[in-house]
Amino acid sequence: MNKLVESASVVTPDIIQKYRDAFGEQLTTNRAMLDRFGQDESFHATCPPDMVVTVRTTDDVVRVLQLSSEHKTPVIPYGAGTSLEGSVAALYGGVCVNMQEMNKIIDVHPEDMDVVLQPGVTRRQLNNHLKDKGLFFPVDPGADASVGGMISTRASGTTTVRYGAMRDNVMALEVVLADGRVVRTGSRARKSAAGYDLTRLITGAEGTLGIVTEATLRLYGIPEAMAAAVCTFSSLESAVDTVIETIQFGIPIARMELLDDVQLEAINRYSKTNYTVAPTLFLEFHGTDASVAEQSEAVSAIAGEHGGANFSWTTNTEERNQLWRARHDAAYASKALRPNGAIWATDVCVPISRLAECIALTRVDLDENNLLAPIVGHVGDGNFHLVLLVDHNDVAEVECAQKVHERMVNRAIDMGGTCTGEHGIGYGKLDFLRTEHGVGVDVMQDIKKALDPLGIMNPGKVFVR
Amino acid sequence: MNKLVESASVVTPDIIQKYRDAFGEQLTTNRAMLDRFGQDESFHATCPPDMVVTVRTTDDVVRVLQLSSEHKTPVIPYGAGTSLEGSVAALYGGVCVNMQEMNKIIDVHPEDMDVVLQPGVTRRQLNNHLKDKGLFFPVDPGADASVGGMISTRASGTTTVRYGAMRDNVMALEVVLADGRVVRTGSRARKSAAGYDLTRLITGAEGTLGIVTEATLRLYGIPEAMAAAVCTFSSLESAVDTVIETIQFGIPIARMELLDDVQLEAINRYSKTNYTVAPTLFLEFHGTDASVAEQSEAVSAIAGEHGGANFSWTTNTEERNQLWRARHDAAYASKALRPNGAIWATDVCVPISRLAECIALTRVDLDENNLLAPIVGHVGDGNFHLVLLVDHNDVAEVECAQKVHERMVNRAIDMGGTCTGEHGIGYGKLDFLRTEHGVGVDVMQDIKKALDPLGIMNPGKVFVR
Repeated sequence: MNKLVESASVVTPDIIQKYRDAFGEQLTTNRAMLDRFGQDESFHATCPPDMVVTVRTTDDVVRVLQLSSEHKTPVIPYGAGTSLEGSVAALYGGVCVNMQEMNKIIDVHPEDMDVVLQPGVTRRQLNNHLKDKGLFFPVDPGADASVGGMISTRASGTTTVRYGAMRDNVMALEVVLADGRVVRTGSRARKSAAGYDLTRLITGAEGTLGIVTEATLRLYGIPEAMAAAVCTFSSLESAVDTVIETIQFGIPIARMELLDDVQLEAINRYSKTNYTVAPTLFLEFHGTDASVAEQSEAVSAIAGEHGGANFSWTTNTEERNQLWRARHDAAYASKALRPNGAIWATDVCVPISRLAECIALTRVDLDENNLLAPIVGHVGDGNFHLVLLVDHNDVAEVECAQKVHERMVNRAIDMGGTCTGEHGIGYGKLDFLRTEHGVGVDVMQDIKKALDPLGIMNPGKVFVR
Repeated sequence: MNKLVESASVVTPDIIQKYRDAFGEQLTTNRAMLDRFGQDESFHATCPPDMVVTVRTTDDVVRVLQLSSEHKTPVIPYGAGTSLEGSVAALYGGVCVNMQEMNKIIDVHPEDMDVVLQPGVTRRQLNNHLKDKGLFFPVDPGADASVGGMISTRASGTTTVRYGAMRDNVMALEVVLADGRVVRTGSRARKSAAGYDLTRLITGAEGTLGIVTEATLRLYGIPEAMAAAVCTFSSLESAVDTVIETIQFGIPIARMELLDDVQLEAINRYSKTNYTVAPTLFLEFHGTDASVAEQSEAVSAIAGEHGGANFSWTTNTEERNQLWRARHDAAYASKALRPNGAIWATDVCVPISRLAECIALTRVDLDENNLLAPIVGHVGDGNFHLVLLVDHNDVAEVECAQKVHERMVNRAIDMGGTCTGEHGIGYGKLDFLRTEHGVGVDVMQDIKKALDPLGIMNPGKVFVR
């Protein structure tokens, strides 16, 4: 259980009553509920809001924001609670806007390959709905996140190397701004050169500029054939070189995941598998039967040139699912390495030419500091995750982990990368945003002030309040 | 020659002298130069600036903007002058910042598949430079535009269906803001969840928020094999249905261009070709030899089901180049239909399910009004271009064309589309931005005011000043 801190709230019982008058049974101040809605899956301290309002319509959200503007109440949107940087912690108290009941899939357009939906829809709910239509939404961050949360953190994941991130697959949004104005950004056209790209300004704003109440997402046809493959390497470099060459050859690979030896060992223990304990690539190919075979063979040849061993591929669905189940269970497998430890999942992203070096230096730093931390990466994007296993109650260990983490993030930025590839800033990476963007943070804050002059939207996230 | 209007300039000789003191021979007030730099390739009236400063470094741009802030002088960046909505017209006079000498390709990173360059580099210059490295930059708007201009108008083009638009392929920018601050947005990491997406805010801002002084672009490997194909249809619907099905099947087609019968006739006359005069698709496939053959055969089969005739494909480079030369010369071919007419090239973009209907209704409207206007489209994106041939001196005809244009744009917006897929707003589509985005335009203007409080950045573009 994460440490729980009390928020710096100045919300009075009188103010809460105003919301109660407006929302009746849609509002709760039940302590267990407040705790639940102040918590995500991050390592960071949880922080309960003063109240939770479960919204059902865009109008509900408008009313919340009008009231909140009037009373200068902080507003924190909540999707599925799977964020990893404390995005939902109510640092200054206020009203948590629970989006989970805004979970309708409004319209699927098979000819246009898009879907219009409410932000409380989760990734799995969406793909279950689409299956019969031969369509799928590819962005896969692992967790069963809500679409609204994925938009707000600019999520990506295992398939981004082929299908892009949320940035690339959000076509249009309906957003309620701090003052209650409802804005529609984008359209169902595949592209537009009309005015500022508000869709992509809101995507990744972590609820600090407005609350997403509807989204239009791009869809893809479920491929005719899918194949999975595994290949082990004697070094991180050779695994990464295989990936670099695969991309250079333009092979449209769908998934390319790198797991280091520590992660493989954790998976073998947890999932009762017997993968070779060595730097390993998990791969997936999408296409026709012929093109999937051609891709697999091409990557096998490339891997061979880089000393890859035991390359095996399969189009068997059960074997493929088993592979990706093992990959998706990596976090649980890591946790099982130290049952009484907490998971601190963090990510950075670098130019792919620096990836092997960045991971290797991080591994040395971890070993020198006796920290247990498997590494997995969306290697086609240059993005990797460190899953630190830390005892919350061991102050020295937490401090040590913080320092290793800080060095890793600064290393990634120094290499021309970013402090987070897909988790967001939340309040866990505030300082690094400045290191990475410098004056750019002032520009972001100029925009924040222009759209949220009272500073009520998810305060303390992305920027220090 | 376009109509020339005098700007509403309030720039005094004293102010011009300040710039002359700072920039010496880099500044000109030569009348012919002023006229040249106030003109793009649009139908809209040209409007010369008071002076042109040819910048060579980011510091030069900083000094221009510091002086311009001090004297409240309008600033208009100029790339290659190929814009189509009057983006470079100095409506309020001021200083044109000529970016053409900032044309260095700074660094190519083959392993990371990216390039760092100055914004004056043109598309062809870049691809000539990359050829020997087996790499290319795919965004192809037709004209040999500058990279800075392509960023500023959020350009796309024939290959967007496969490789995305500028939105998807700009990784990072250096931008000088109105007050002279230099901001670096993004990084060389393939993706990031760190803070607001300033890269995509600047991409498409048409120089109204700052001047791009450096860009990092994503590159792709030149495919092992390329094939081109042509296919004619008895109706627009069947051509578009072929495209819809091709995308649904996930065939990674590289180019898919729709040309209507009027356009084909113009091409046949101009390029001495003998294409069937009917709705036609020009296609291109990229991949390995095997996958290109597989794609061609798959699309041929789909086209056959929709009544497509004369499907022929080739991997012969000369034949392929001939096809795309004919496509790229479409604008000249259109112009040749009416040598004394001016070209009014405009574009809209709709969900692809509405494309055939939108084009057909537009064709009826054109015919009913006796207007000559070939139609070509990047059909995979739902984007089409109307090339109106209008006599500038015929007031009644210009008015008639304006009305047809207005109906077409409103039709596209009503169908869930956008008033421009790739040309931008400039000052030619100001009213339509409001129709399309409503309250969103207020939000855009809030951002504009926050970043350019004096309103000196390309005033009168995107928004009415």
